[in-house]
Amino acid sequence: MIVKARYVSRLLLVALFFCSASVALPLVEKQTFTAKQFRLFSGKVLPEVKVGWESYGELNAEKDNVILITHYFSGSSHAAGKYQESDEQPGYWDAIIGPGKPIDTSKYFVISVDSLANLSAYDDNVITTGPATVNPETNKPYGLAFPVVTIRDFVNVQKAVLESLGISKLHAVIGPSMGSMQAIDWASAYPDWVPRMVSVIGSGQSDAWTTAALEHWARPIRLDKNWKDGSYTRETAPVEGLVSSLMLITQQALHPGFFNQQGSAISYKPLESAPLEDIRQSHSIVSWLEQRARSRADKMDANHLLYLVRACQLFVAGHNGSLQEGLSSIKAKTLFMPAANDLLLMPYLSTRTFEQLREAGKNSHYVELEGNLGHLEGVLDIQEQGEQLKSFLNDKK
Amino acid sequence: MIVKARYVSRLLLVALFFCSASVALPLVEKQTFTAKQFRLFSGKVLPEVKVGWESYGELNAEKDNVILITHYFSGSSHAAGKYQESDEQPGYWDAIIGPGKPIDTSKYFVISVDSLANLSAYDDNVITTGPATVNPETNKPYGLAFPVVTIRDFVNVQKAVLESLGISKLHAVIGPSMGSMQAIDWASAYPDWVPRMVSVIGSGQSDAWTTAALEHWARPIRLDKNWKDGSYTRETAPVEGLVSSLMLITQQALHPGFFNQQGSAISYKPLESAPLEDIRQSHSIVSWLEQRARSRADKMDANHLLYLVRACQLFVAGHNGSLQEGLSSIKAKTLFMPAANDLLLMPYLSTRTFEQLREAGKNSHYVELEGNLGHLEGVLDIQEQGEQLKSFLNDKK
Repeated sequence: MIVKARYVSRLLLVALFFCSASVALPLVEKQTFTAKQFRLFSGKVLPEVKVGWESYGELNAEKDNVILITHYFSGSSHAAGKYQESDEQPGYWDAIIGPGKPIDTSKYFVISVDSLANLSAYDDNVITTGPATVNPETNKPYGLAFPVVTIRDFVNVQKAVLESLGISKLHAVIGPSMGSMQAIDWASAYPDWVPRMVSVIGSGQSDAWTTAALEHWARPIRLDKNWKDGSYTRETAPVEGLVSSLMLITQQALHPGFFNQQGSAISYKPLESAPLEDIRQSHSIVSWLEQRARSRADKMDANHLLYLVRACQLFVAGHNGSLQEGLSSIKAKTLFMPAANDLLLMPYLSTRTFEQLREAGKNSHYVELEGNLGHLEGVLDIQEQGEQLKSFLNDKK
Repeated sequence: MIVKARYVSRLLLVALFFCSASVALPLVEKQTFTAKQFRLFSGKVLPEVKVGWESYGELNAEKDNVILITHYFSGSSHAAGKYQESDEQPGYWDAIIGPGKPIDTSKYFVISVDSLANLSAYDDNVITTGPATVNPETNKPYGLAFPVVTIRDFVNVQKAVLESLGISKLHAVIGPSMGSMQAIDWASAYPDWVPRMVSVIGSGQSDAWTTAALEHWARPIRLDKNWKDGSYTRETAPVEGLVSSLMLITQQALHPGFFNQQGSAISYKPLESAPLEDIRQSHSIVSWLEQRARSRADKMDANHLLYLVRACQLFVAGHNGSLQEGLSSIKAKTLFMPAANDLLLMPYLSTRTFEQLREAGKNSHYVELEGNLGHLEGVLDIQEQGEQLKSFLNDKK
């Protein structure tokens, strides 16, 4: 019953958004940022970096009302609002970003930037630089000639975007999942920029479990005969490998509670006749998952997925020798918000980072998201902790 | 510290076994059972079924002291003992099967049978019939022409083996994971045979979550260019797909607690230089997992893995329309033993089956395995609940 109430409340939120949008909210516009000779954390240099960004609310004269939103693995800078009235869905965190919402755009200038190697390379609303980008030296897509990029590089691109706007300090940085990695890295790498940091469904580092778990996302792509060591065109892309990867990611980001509701909705049964009769046939729930993945694969690039996996695998806050070292430089007040039922980045990852910060005498807070969506609680249901978030962001440091 | 104590105690158990084995225990011998024109649950008929089986202890004159052990997904009928003094490891449940142990071979005749489509098709100590078996009609391996097999078929093969020995009733049936599925199906399909059933790290059915989760094990194999719709020879087998599948299975059967200890043991760090420098390189923990999988893949058949996945996906106790219907026929006293930290078949699956049996007025019991091995607690650490198991098995019904 709790779940149903949640669904209804989410529907209501969406409905309310439609109403208010038609009255007042301005439409969102994607901007482009370009940098030349961009030096990566590895020391390698990209001749050109081009990324998209978008913002909500107004930058004040002092340029000190900036909240940076860092996005998750399969996300983009589209955190809130709509590009056109007719868009089916607003940005992913629209429930908490807007006038009067926990991240209040009547007070704050909220900004978000597309990552390097963004998964949705072929989405018209995403601007990114990655293996699918044309290498100016060869006039072909980089493929695996593209250098490995890290969470730190995503942070440094965001910093360059902010500096191009004359910004030199944030009010806060906040992000879910891979976005949480960027938020923590911001607080560690540029402590004077970051007075407040919120890590949602995140981790202070990729432990052995997480790095190995991420590898399973990459392997189906590398097995696809169309992958060809990363040298493919969009027309001959390793779609089947990408679909398999997305199926795995989708399930791991959910929880049995929610997943089995979907099963009931499509009348899943273990003993279905098609998969009993023929090894090549699938259960209804498998077909459901596959169709969901296939519909998303169209705008995504398989090599980009490999590079995002690697960026996450390499992550330790501060990009130093140890998590402890990385956390030691943090000056921000911090808030950790794992999802209790998260099976992908389990709460222990947040707990350990939070505890290490407390042990180092830092001002750190912890609150769990409830609900049955698993990891996706932090993307689709974060408004559950909207009040906590609001008071954390509005408190004087 | 608890974990270290466990390790030590397991080492001690193994050491003790070595000592006692050199003194008294008889060596185990694999037997072969053959049946002709074997009718499957699907209605299809296999011209010949050949499976291996082994036993420990003596069948009494009344033939009423039989405990059947049903094996897990990547296991075989080698549940206890050694084939030769020089074997590095005894059978997987040796800690609880033997004279004076919870499954006491001085009282019981303990027997186990290799499954159809057993994963270790090329292991000299496994005898099985599956897609890698030569199809008498074509003189080539069946490949995907092999009919889909179910947990019920494994049960019916076991029943045929038992009947060939003049046995018509069990003292108990007990198995872990996929073995638990067989044990529950036995209790439902042949209630007059089964007075006691123990489900270890199991489930009464594959819910939508489980069926989808199992699918991820199959997809890497089908993506491998050597798979060729199942028509390959052992020399040109889809090894990379099989290795990817085994990597996923291995991790899912474990828990971060144990896994991160392994990470520490090999000095895993997120920010390792090889994977930072080169997208084609891997982290130490990924190499560790891959090597582990590769060393096991050698004796395994990729198509067999697909068929085992399917058998598990199709599973509902009783192989009827619903779990409730399947459980209604059970006469056995039952014991459910999930692992508290299991991420593969989570405790809720055991809980639900247990609760449905209680609601139907059946004599059912529940106890959880602790420890940090995750799913594998039920295979590698079951002796933790040895006393519970012993009293359950020895109680008059």
